[in-house]
Amino acid sequence: MDLETTTEFRPVFGTDGLIAAVCVDDRDSAVLMVAHMNADALDLTRRSGFAHFWSRSRQEIWKKGESSGHTLRLVTMFTDCDQDCLLLRVLPAGPACHTLARSCFYRQVTDAGLTRAPA
Amino acid sequence: MDLETTTEFRPVFGTDGLIAAVCVDDRDSAVLMVAHMNADALDLTRRSGFAHFWSRSRQEIWKKGESSGHTLRLVTMFTDCDQDCLLLRVLPAGPACHTLARSCFYRQVTDAGLTRAPA
Repeated sequence: MDLETTTEFRPVFGTDGLIAAVCVDDRDSAVLMVAHMNADALDLTRRSGFAHFWSRSRQEIWKKGESSGHTLRLVTMFTDCDQDCLLLRVLPAGPACHTLARSCFYRQVTDAGLTRAPA
Repeated sequence: MDLETTTEFRPVFGTDGLIAAVCVDDRDSAVLMVAHMNADALDLTRRSGFAHFWSRSRQEIWKKGESSGHTLRLVTMFTDCDQDCLLLRVLPAGPACHTLARSCFYRQVTDAGLTRAPA
C-alpha cells in the first residue's frame, strides 16, 4: 500500500535523518513553531506525551521546555499524504518561542520588511 | 542586527537552497500543506500573490494549482524567529492536497496506526 493510503505509520525521514514537525496550539490552531525530529525524538514524543526534537545546532535530542518549563504537551499527531511531515496539536505551557513570543511566527513579511504581528 | 530582531527579511535557505513553507487556511487557521521554496519560488509567490514551490522530485518550480486549479492565494506571510521557516496564510481554491483532501494532514497517528481524521 502506498504512503498516501496506508494505515501504517511509516514516517519518511530525510537524508539527514530528520522529519519536520509543525506544532499548533490545540485551542485555536495557531502555529507555534516548526522543528525537526529524528526517529528517537519522535519515539520519545509519542511515549512521553511531550514534544522532543533534534537540535541541528547542538546535534542532540532535546525536550522542548526542559530548561524553560515551556513544554508542549501532545494532544494529537497527524502525518501528511507522503508521510514526510508531521503536525502536532499541542497544549503549550507558556510561550513556545525562546524569544518569549507566544509563537515563533511573530513577524509578518511585508514589502517594507518585517513587521511585528502575530500570525 | 540578529535574525530574531531585525526588521529585514533575510530568509535562511538550507544547504539544499530551500526553505519550508507552512500553508494555513486564512479562514480558520487549518494547516493545509507544507512544501518547500527556493529563492525564485519565494519571489514568484510574493510578486504573483499565489503560492509557488520547488518540487524536489521534479527539480522545478511549480505554481500550486497550475494544472488542478487548486491554487493558494497569499493573504499574509510570516517568518519565524531564526528566519528558516515561512508561514503563509492563504485562501485555497478547492482542496489543497493532490489526494483531494482539504488538507494533506488527513490522517491521525495513533497507537494502532493511522486513522483518517482531519487535523
